[in-house]
Amino acid sequence: MTNMKTVSAERHIYAFAPDMAPAGAIMCGELVRFEAHDALGGQIRSESDVLAGLDFNRVNPATGPLEIKGARRGDTLVVSVKELELADRGVTVTGPGLGVLPGLLGEHVTRILPVRSEGVRFNDIWLPYRPMIGVIGVAPEKDGYPTGTAHRHGGNMDTKEIGIGSILYLPVFQDGAMLAMGDVHAVMGDGEVCVSACEVAAKITVAVDRIPGRCREWPIVETSSSWHILVSLPTIEEALAEATHQAVRILEEALELATEDAYMLTSLAVDLGISQLVDPNKTAKASIPKTILPSAF
Amino acid sequence: MTNMKTVSAERHIYAFAPDMAPAGAIMCGELVRFEAHDALGGQIRSESDVLAGLDFNRVNPATGPLEIKGARRGDTLVVSVKELELADRGVTVTGPGLGVLPGLLGEHVTRILPVRSEGVRFNDIWLPYRPMIGVIGVAPEKDGYPTGTAHRHGGNMDTKEIGIGSILYLPVFQDGAMLAMGDVHAVMGDGEVCVSACEVAAKITVAVDRIPGRCREWPIVETSSSWHILVSLPTIEEALAEATHQAVRILEEALELATEDAYMLTSLAVDLGISQLVDPNKTAKASIPKTILPSAF
Repeated sequence: MTNMKTVSAERHIYAFAPDMAPAGAIMCGELVRFEAHDALGGQIRSESDVLAGLDFNRVNPATGPLEIKGARRGDTLVVSVKELELADRGVTVTGPGLGVLPGLLGEHVTRILPVRSEGVRFNDIWLPYRPMIGVIGVAPEKDGYPTGTAHRHGGNMDTKEIGIGSILYLPVFQDGAMLAMGDVHAVMGDGEVCVSACEVAAKITVAVDRIPGRCREWPIVETSSSWHILVSLPTIEEALAEATHQAVRILEEALELATEDAYMLTSLAVDLGISQLVDPNKTAKASIPKTILPSAF
Repeated sequence: MTNMKTVSAERHIYAFAPDMAPAGAIMCGELVRFEAHDALGGQIRSESDVLAGLDFNRVNPATGPLEIKGARRGDTLVVSVKELELADRGVTVTGPGLGVLPGLLGEHVTRILPVRSEGVRFNDIWLPYRPMIGVIGVAPEKDGYPTGTAHRHGGNMDTKEIGIGSILYLPVFQDGAMLAMGDVHAVMGDGEVCVSACEVAAKITVAVDRIPGRCREWPIVETSSSWHILVSLPTIEEALAEATHQAVRILEEALELATEDAYMLTSLAVDLGISQLVDPNKTAKASIPKTILPSAF
């Protein structure tokens, strides 16, 4: 596509802050391409480069931020993921003290994985190619958050459902929204248990729009089947409870249900799940089927 | 089917104990029908019967136990779910102090839901009919467990995947296994957040067999796509970590991988999930796709 605006990978942030200066601007309704380094900042050149040896000031870059002209505090930013073009080589890293099983390993290890649209190869095992965006967010309300942390503004949510064809709804806390993204994965299991997925550089094409004067408290991703409410808090227990609470509140409001009915309906029809367990805030999802909730907005 | 053995709902237990006396016996390879009360012991007759008013000594009955002749300590019991015939009326209950949001409600509430094979009706919303077995287990190794609690022997795992066509693999701790089950749900969301699902009386038909001299540490349910390892521990964080550990160990052994490779492969390809968050032990699942693991045994 000609004339599409592009944000270069060289324009990136390491924290989502309330007062970020924009790397560029688009109008609502426009398509835009974000070029993104991998989550390790492209520092892994061979399998002898391990996480412990990296410059941590260059980990988790997010390309942007892009000012969305017309987006106002209190709106919802609507980000439709149109295309993900991945580099042909991903990396997975882990080591002692990392992930869900911090005591499992004695040494750091890196694997370089061939990435093809037919699949991702790990040793001699072919895994499905399921590209997704790990970090995506906007300027937060008050405090700043490192790009490795997720909260109400989005950030490092590491949610498989944020892939091609899905639509991410983010609350807008600052005029212009200030959208940034990166940390693309070629494949990831729910949990991202060893601390990384198949980390890959990518070009991300999104269309950006807004819902004026209306927003939810947490990011929501819409897929063909469901609305997935994404909640990121210090423990997975807190995140699961708050995701449940949000599902109850949305069903209560959207379907005009009594609180007890919304609670029971959530118990019967909403699936709680895990996005990731390894970042400073853990991310839970509450997935409401579209069959019972045609729209979350 | 004629001549199929049946275990009457009147033969039930409220705890899985190491030394249970059998209510009957079958041979390995036989089909058997378990008739089960609902999880509330059939005490709810109208919506004015609420959980707080029930006789708690009659909650969570599990029909059985059935001795499986030939099953020996150290085997795996293989329980294939062939048929679930549900009553046409389910109940959902919740109230103050219950579920993931114990502070949400001020009063107890009960709903009676029409159950049809076309769907389950909640108010004027039709939910999909997805019958599943909430409580299923065998005699544990040492301690007894109330039927409302899940652990290595199975029990109240409240896992949606234990439905028609799936196969549950349970470690056998006592000769004869002593299989019992109940707590059938017509539909449930992952989490079972309000403390109950659509609780319904049912007839459960299973085929029972064994894998001699070989068992896993926790129950595993096989569906058409995946092996789901089911771990139940006091907190969901512990359950998720142990489920991750089991996935790593199984991949390590079955695919002859180095530990670090099994950890990375789990991060890339295994989905952590939630079965339930509301029983005394919480149940997590680690789902390994059959595309990478043809057999967990």
